[in-house]
Amino acid sequence: MTTLNVDLGERSYPIYINGNILGDADLYLRHIKGNKVLIVTDDNVAPLYLATLLEALPSFDCQHLALPAGEAHKNLETVNKIYDVLMQSHFDRNCTIIALGGGVVGDITGFAAATYQRGVAFVQVPTTLLAQVDSSVGGKTGVNHPLGKNMIGAFHQPACVIADMNTLDTLPQRELIAGMAEVIKYGLIDDSEFFEWIDQHMSDLLGLNKDALANAVERSCTNKSRIVAADERESGQRALLNLGHTFGHAIETAQGYGNWLHGEAIGAGMCLAAKYSHDLGLMDEQQADRVCRTIEKAGLPSTPPTNMTADRCLELMSHDKKVRDKKLTLVLMRGIGKSFLCNDFDQKQLSKTLTLAFD
Amino acid sequence: MTTLNVDLGERSYPIYINGNILGDADLYLRHIKGNKVLIVTDDNVAPLYLATLLEALPSFDCQHLALPAGEAHKNLETVNKIYDVLMQSHFDRNCTIIALGGGVVGDITGFAAATYQRGVAFVQVPTTLLAQVDSSVGGKTGVNHPLGKNMIGAFHQPACVIADMNTLDTLPQRELIAGMAEVIKYGLIDDSEFFEWIDQHMSDLLGLNKDALANAVERSCTNKSRIVAADERESGQRALLNLGHTFGHAIETAQGYGNWLHGEAIGAGMCLAAKYSHDLGLMDEQQADRVCRTIEKAGLPSTPPTNMTADRCLELMSHDKKVRDKKLTLVLMRGIGKSFLCNDFDQKQLSKTLTLAFD
Repeated sequence: MTTLNVDLGERSYPIYINGNILGDADLYLRHIKGNKVLIVTDDNVAPLYLATLLEALPSFDCQHLALPAGEAHKNLETVNKIYDVLMQSHFDRNCTIIALGGGVVGDITGFAAATYQRGVAFVQVPTTLLAQVDSSVGGKTGVNHPLGKNMIGAFHQPACVIADMNTLDTLPQRELIAGMAEVIKYGLIDDSEFFEWIDQHMSDLLGLNKDALANAVERSCTNKSRIVAADERESGQRALLNLGHTFGHAIETAQGYGNWLHGEAIGAGMCLAAKYSHDLGLMDEQQADRVCRTIEKAGLPSTPPTNMTADRCLELMSHDKKVRDKKLTLVLMRGIGKSFLCNDFDQKQLSKTLTLAFD
Repeated sequence: MTTLNVDLGERSYPIYINGNILGDADLYLRHIKGNKVLIVTDDNVAPLYLATLLEALPSFDCQHLALPAGEAHKNLETVNKIYDVLMQSHFDRNCTIIALGGGVVGDITGFAAATYQRGVAFVQVPTTLLAQVDSSVGGKTGVNHPLGKNMIGAFHQPACVIADMNTLDTLPQRELIAGMAEVIKYGLIDDSEFFEWIDQHMSDLLGLNKDALANAVERSCTNKSRIVAADERESGQRALLNLGHTFGHAIETAQGYGNWLHGEAIGAGMCLAAKYSHDLGLMDEQQADRVCRTIEKAGLPSTPPTNMTADRCLELMSHDKKVRDKKLTLVLMRGIGKSFLCNDFDQKQLSKTLTLAFD
């Protein structure tokens, strides 16, 4: 088993990566606080893995709650359902909440854990590639506001992350592909060697080769952990993790949450970032094309949705969390593995690039 | 002007205490981040002080929102109204939210600030005695759940607190008295000299003598700051601040939020804590009586509501945030200024004491 340590001082925690560890009782015993445990999952994941998880926790007083699946339910109302169960079952501060599922379950559950009685322990058991490589690392939790994604949230680190590769066997192909967007992102940000490796092993990854997947998860988490450890509260370099996300979030919001998967929107968003970087003369054409081809190779969209205009995209981007005093920060690329933050970019060229891309 | 510094490392902040400082532009300039400011207040306070505050902020892009007044509105729905304004007005992370009002406004606004885009700056301008001595110090923010008070929340420190004594001139007498409960608490916890001073100056305090009030606020905040600085996240001694609160919260919840004021419930709660401490042989009768007499002198109730049973009180206490693995921690007293935390108290005697008090 691979164990990565996310180094955040007294909030440090391990990520366990292996096949068949979702039911490993010892891992839970090491990290669960108190006697009461609430497992939050969704109605897709519950029939697949809830029983296995419950069997691994015989000595705890366990409750469980299956939320309706999907990004459309990632809102305060759903968080309230978690509070209701916690209150009705008399959960005190010395309890643990386990998030069993994908990124949506992890984000909602993490926010409930961050805010129930001003913060209780939680454990992440991510069952999608996206959640394993991205959303279970870094402590960002939160839900959507009707006007913007992840606008309501908190930083709250898990006690541990248990990433079981075998859960990917039951993941719909479309979601596996969506997760690849974040894997590719970790190559693009600052690890061109990893980008090459992903490109070469794409068929192994999409064919569910467990060694390849474990390597992809490990390398993505390592890269993310390094960036998060250097800037836990996102005052600077952590924003690199948003490569493709400003464009991607605008696409997701315009389509209505859940119609385009997050990873799909990020795929198209990274292509837009590459195109814009090229149009600004930062990245040569060959490299920008290479980015889009690898994204297509994963089966991800490399162009934005046709039912959306450049103006709508720009308007939604102005709501982005990375806007400070009306100035937006974008993640641009000087090449594959050479991303950087930019807040004095050419606004006119951005309109041009987007008009071309959206028309 | 008195300036107290709450020492919390990089989260340290000042409390300014004086008459006529609510409109002091310099204080805001020192602490407001960014250009956009949202003032959250309620419909009692807005007609009294909103104009003065707005005049002090001519160089900022200010929005304001007046919430319906009262504890009954301290819930997630109200927090959502704040998010809506922030989103609709394109507030980014680099903004500041000002809480202008009592403890309820401060708690709701602080929670919105803690969770909007995972945390933005906020400034507290408390306009009630209760908020000045208690709820604006210490970083606890949150709202109520239908099954329990302050069950949803976060720790979020303000950038500064501006406590203007003149705002107490417009405070209804009943609320001034309610605030006295927390002032008395800061004597009872660990400062018997302050308790004596309060007892001797009660008529000055209730008669709105500004020097007496400023002294009471300063000493209360100093005492609270010291306890908070030693235990920001309430892992131990900070729980002393809950003297009278476990009983008090049960009373508030049973009566429906807002029917008994928080301070009134805490007054009766501190008397119950004194009676129980006496019944356990911890505190002599004279001291326990003294506690109740001073509470009565302030005009606070020293007995619980008559429409509530001891059993109902015990049941509600079992939901308290200080319960860990079914064990409740109570704040008891060995004398005035000699409070301590106790989690192995005599449960039978507690039932007896409460049965006597509630019947």
